[in-house]
Amino acid sequence: MALGEFDLIERYFKRPSLSPARNTPHADVALGIGDDCALLQPRPGTQLAISSDMLVEGRHFFPDVDPAHLGHKALAVNLSDLAACGAKPLAFTLALALPRVDEPWLAAFSRGLLKLADAHGCTLMGGDTTQGPLNICITVFGEVPVVAGKSQALLRSGARPGDDIYVSGTLGDARLALDALRGTLQLPADVLAQVRQRLEQPTPRVALGMALRGIATAAIDVSDGLLGDLNHILKASHCGASIDTHFAIQLIAAHTNESWPTGQFDAEFSLQNRLGWVLAGGDDYELLFTAPATARAAVLEAARSSATPVTRIGRIDAESGLRLVDTNGQPVSGQFASFDHFA
Amino acid sequence: MALGEFDLIERYFKRPSLSPARNTPHADVALGIGDDCALLQPRPGTQLAISSDMLVEGRHFFPDVDPAHLGHKALAVNLSDLAACGAKPLAFTLALALPRVDEPWLAAFSRGLLKLADAHGCTLMGGDTTQGPLNICITVFGEVPVVAGKSQALLRSGARPGDDIYVSGTLGDARLALDALRGTLQLPADVLAQVRQRLEQPTPRVALGMALRGIATAAIDVSDGLLGDLNHILKASHCGASIDTHFAIQLIAAHTNESWPTGQFDAEFSLQNRLGWVLAGGDDYELLFTAPATARAAVLEAARSSATPVTRIGRIDAESGLRLVDTNGQPVSGQFASFDHFA
Repeated sequence: MALGEFDLIERYFKRPSLSPARNTPHADVALGIGDDCALLQPRPGTQLAISSDMLVEGRHFFPDVDPAHLGHKALAVNLSDLAACGAKPLAFTLALALPRVDEPWLAAFSRGLLKLADAHGCTLMGGDTTQGPLNICITVFGEVPVVAGKSQALLRSGARPGDDIYVSGTLGDARLALDALRGTLQLPADVLAQVRQRLEQPTPRVALGMALRGIATAAIDVSDGLLGDLNHILKASHCGASIDTHFAIQLIAAHTNESWPTGQFDAEFSLQNRLGWVLAGGDDYELLFTAPATARAAVLEAARSSATPVTRIGRIDAESGLRLVDTNGQPVSGQFASFDHFA
Repeated sequence: MALGEFDLIERYFKRPSLSPARNTPHADVALGIGDDCALLQPRPGTQLAISSDMLVEGRHFFPDVDPAHLGHKALAVNLSDLAACGAKPLAFTLALALPRVDEPWLAAFSRGLLKLADAHGCTLMGGDTTQGPLNICITVFGEVPVVAGKSQALLRSGARPGDDIYVSGTLGDARLALDALRGTLQLPADVLAQVRQRLEQPTPRVALGMALRGIATAAIDVSDGLLGDLNHILKASHCGASIDTHFAIQLIAAHTNESWPTGQFDAEFSLQNRLGWVLAGGDDYELLFTAPATARAAVLEAARSSATPVTRIGRIDAESGLRLVDTNGQPVSGQFASFDHFA
């Protein structure tokens, strides 16, 4: 590699306005880039939520993706894990393997990465660069309050029978974009642009996650697909669930794109395809969470205060297993029932 | 990938004896593997030292390396960063890209990794696995005391003119092994075995780093090579240094291998080659540190209490630049002088 590790970090990821020993405006980060370790001092009465995600070319992104979008997404998927715990972002480390030094690529990647980091007050505090097949590994640190000795972190294990099940935003658009980019379906240009943004630049629901502390009983972010991720909650919480399939017909955002004449979306795509994108699409980075029925007003207030739409989509059952039901609570049959195998 | 991420983590990296919500005997780790985030609660009066290192096949290890050794080394290089800060290891995350699910490989890798982790009381608290070219990214967390508002972390920036310069253990053996494995030189089998262990299973100097808190003025671990890493200290501390080349003739451990008849090592390898391995070899993971001349007894006591040999090799100068000198403090010339370009 023509440029050493130190040069790369210095040039693209270190902020020129900060002193070498304090590469950050945040009091929590006592020492940033440029020593053997970064130093982080959590505030008294808090604990650190930590998550690590690795993104690989060909598996998590296309080789020709806009590097600014890739920088955004690499951090967004990690921030989404913090959101699912109700944690406030503090800082992150970046380890980066690059096949070669491509300075325009690095400049765009760091621009996309640091723009999202700044939007969440999340400081790049250290990392590593090396030569190798393109690989991006981010470890993110967030703050969770501890109140009276009890962590306020949202876990997967707290769902209880009778709890409502909610999902934020919309689902399925990222998968729709993936299928279009793979060439397995055709989309109008403006619809593709809309869903492609959902795929490449997901919005981590950090404010909603923080607002749900003390309200939600369990939470997870939707990365594998709604049914698969709900199953993680059910397994950790030792319970089952019923999902109302009716919501799914509406929940894919592409449905509401104005360039599609009313009804055309239905004509173009079968209900079964749409349900598949919503229930098992993945890469949505929305929050899936549970809350007691008595907390419905509090959930709506959390959604309002965080400016994040949420939809109630089902109910936690004592009986194990995951059931797809219609609006009358009856098991769905025929084409919809085939999605049971995702559960 | 035939096995999902969750299965892989469950099978090879999660300890069966611990409950799902507490995959650790350490009070600091409030929640381990199996949720969106791990939770870490540093003790009052401490701060976290954090380091992230990425290892790539072909660059950091040979494709046919023993996976148990690779598991050891992947964590060792991270623990070495904690050692250089004087931090006590607490926990780490592991992100792993694998071309395919090779269960014997994974079993050996995790065995080597977790054996070293256990030896340092360092808990695997979370991570990520994905399919892709082999890549290992570990982020490690250590504890540093804060005394009277002042961090006890060892930094690169504290060296002062007049300070002594020390290095732990021996240098150059890892590079000697690398050259032998690349086929650019021949070694007797038992010498190769000795230096290969230094290359593949380095010993992070954690106990020495902790013992040097309050004694060393600056520290770094030797990963790039003695001269290159010393230069990081000099740059951060705004000073220069003189290194006595005499020590280098003795400091390569292979020199003392009993299978080499006295004098044969000298005959086989020129002084210049030996100096090159020691001064610029890299991958040693020894500690390079500075301390005031008044602290010589304290440094020896830290070495004794941590059972780690240390050698005094030079002095910090007010004059910038790095000078190689003989035992009389005179600049070296001829063959030795060529190493100036590493500085």
